[in-house]
Amino acid sequence: MDHSGRLRRLQAALPENKLDLLLVTHLANVRYLCGFTGSAGALLVRERGATFFTDGRYIAQARAEISGAQIVIARKAPFLTAAESLAGSRTGKVGKQVFGFEGETMPVAMRDRMAALLKSKVKLRCAPPLVERARMVKDAEEIASIRRAVELGARLFPILRKKIRPGASEVEVAGALEYAARCGGAEGMSFPTIIASGKRSAVVHGRASGAPIPRRGFVVCDFGVILAGYCSDRTRTVHVGRPSRDARKMYEAVLEAQQAAIACIHPGVTAGEVDGAARRVLRKWKLARYFSHSTGHGLGLEIHEAPRLAAAQKQRLEPGMVITVEPGAYIPGKWGVRIEDVVVVTPNGCEVLAPRDKELIVI
Amino acid sequence: MDHSGRLRRLQAALPENKLDLLLVTHLANVRYLCGFTGSAGALLVRERGATFFTDGRYIAQARAEISGAQIVIARKAPFLTAAESLAGSRTGKVGKQVFGFEGETMPVAMRDRMAALLKSKVKLRCAPPLVERARMVKDAEEIASIRRAVELGARLFPILRKKIRPGASEVEVAGALEYAARCGGAEGMSFPTIIASGKRSAVVHGRASGAPIPRRGFVVCDFGVILAGYCSDRTRTVHVGRPSRDARKMYEAVLEAQQAAIACIHPGVTAGEVDGAARRVLRKWKLARYFSHSTGHGLGLEIHEAPRLAAAQKQRLEPGMVITVEPGAYIPGKWGVRIEDVVVVTPNGCEVLAPRDKELIVI
Repeated sequence: MDHSGRLRRLQAALPENKLDLLLVTHLANVRYLCGFTGSAGALLVRERGATFFTDGRYIAQARAEISGAQIVIARKAPFLTAAESLAGSRTGKVGKQVFGFEGETMPVAMRDRMAALLKSKVKLRCAPPLVERARMVKDAEEIASIRRAVELGARLFPILRKKIRPGASEVEVAGALEYAARCGGAEGMSFPTIIASGKRSAVVHGRASGAPIPRRGFVVCDFGVILAGYCSDRTRTVHVGRPSRDARKMYEAVLEAQQAAIACIHPGVTAGEVDGAARRVLRKWKLARYFSHSTGHGLGLEIHEAPRLAAAQKQRLEPGMVITVEPGAYIPGKWGVRIEDVVVVTPNGCEVLAPRDKELIVI
Repeated sequence: MDHSGRLRRLQAALPENKLDLLLVTHLANVRYLCGFTGSAGALLVRERGATFFTDGRYIAQARAEISGAQIVIARKAPFLTAAESLAGSRTGKVGKQVFGFEGETMPVAMRDRMAALLKSKVKLRCAPPLVERARMVKDAEEIASIRRAVELGARLFPILRKKIRPGASEVEVAGALEYAARCGGAEGMSFPTIIASGKRSAVVHGRASGAPIPRRGFVVCDFGVILAGYCSDRTRTVHVGRPSRDARKMYEAVLEAQQAAIACIHPGVTAGEVDGAARRVLRKWKLARYFSHSTGHGLGLEIHEAPRLAAAQKQRLEPGMVITVEPGAYIPGKWGVRIEDVVVVTPNGCEVLAPRDKELIVI
């Protein structure tokens, strides 16, 4: 990955954002900029140079993973050590320096502790989400990584088909899926696997439970893997037993909504317009009020990134953005359907990754 | 779980902490107080009454899970809706009310957005960690839940023994373990499974990688399940191939350190003293400088909770606290050993949960 280019571009962006320093504490951002994959680290970025802070658990790992930054191992929390290094520095300029932190993720108490250390030495400022903005548009290497993750995810579908049968527990199905993901090289799942069967299919975030799969009804399967740091996300809804005409209509409506949303994805369209395209179709089927979440989200090193595909979102799509498209409809106490793919915005439109298994599959 | 008792005790603690309202946004705290298990929710607690805010994805789930609080479903982020409900309220008292938030977890930007909404209507204040403090001491039902989780974790060890062999990849071993956890009813793992073999055993947080297990050396296996919301955490280090005398000594030293730490756990001892007991043994074996992390941590709804068993921690242990005891020693480039159990502090001392498989197992 192009860590040095990313760091360089961030450094170049500091002056125009009136920052002398930026303390990067959000771990996905740290990883994006310098490659560190551990669970405790902070990167202090200056216009020239960068210093990485971690604790004793990560000595070997930091040395192996990080390039482009000095490494400091400390006994305290990395963000505190970073602040202390500034508080103790004696360069004449320090008094005037503006020290940015990542306010979208840094807890208030952490900021307060830094402020107490730094006193009036620097001017603490909540920085704009510079790294998140950069991460929104993926480079070729990142897209290749996401493609591999999505492909691994898609290859798990046959496992689902085989494991889903009346009486099997949802967690058992999820477990088999996750085991196959591991054997395929996944570091883990990108979120708790959703296997929601029967009436539970109407629960949008129906994590696999101990409930047995009933003899008839939808099973919403929403799952993602993490492969080489990058997330996949995919939902397929299958039907156990013979689907009623209503069930078929429900599935058809959600599929049509998903296809309509995908059809309107191209550079320049707003995230809100893509959301609107899905919602319009569901309105036609009188299902709009059962579509209780947004149409999708960016993904990459994290499962939820910008942009958000929701009503009134003005963010325009650009080539290199990678987003999920996942409309659904959920009738409480009855059933639910969701269909989701990962889509890459291309210069001329978009590419759906691994767009298979989308007809209604009956088990 | 005793949600109503917990909420009542928190409400009773508001006046002495000079708070009229407390907005609970940390999800584990929300779950602790009202039972909600979803991924988006906030609980606004007043001396009399409480209101729960979530979004459209969680309508059915909130109604099924929550007792003791009014439920409000909104289109915006729950914390914003909560703040808006206050901004819009017209009771005469509002102007003087002190509105506490959870500063250890609430991001600065979230606080700033609330402040902009509330203007001078209430006095925003970073509240002390009232819920975390309450959660530190577990009630009988919680201890029973943790016991079940730890038992499930312990039952996975035979899987490890069977799967660990030269040439098998670490992720394959982790996958088999996680599948068995799922089949045992786990909702998931409480952290990314660590299977660190050969030289990687010196990497403290060596998540299972694609690396094959070498023909000879230690394999550190650190894993936890989530069962009915509660976490387990357990580390066993096994040896593949015949261990050298040095390897046996290394294992013996870490085991002695763990036993020394456990032996000194009783009500009244400080967390720092327990840490010191483990460190003292490793010093005797000349391994203290290779023990690069703290001796343990509380666990419950989260994998890392208070108290922290580290140098200079003054928190005194109390009956009902549940902590891990997990000293280790890691010689970079060579090998590492860690042994970990979950321990319940009892009125007279402590109880180690599922304290088996602790002799050096050779595979």
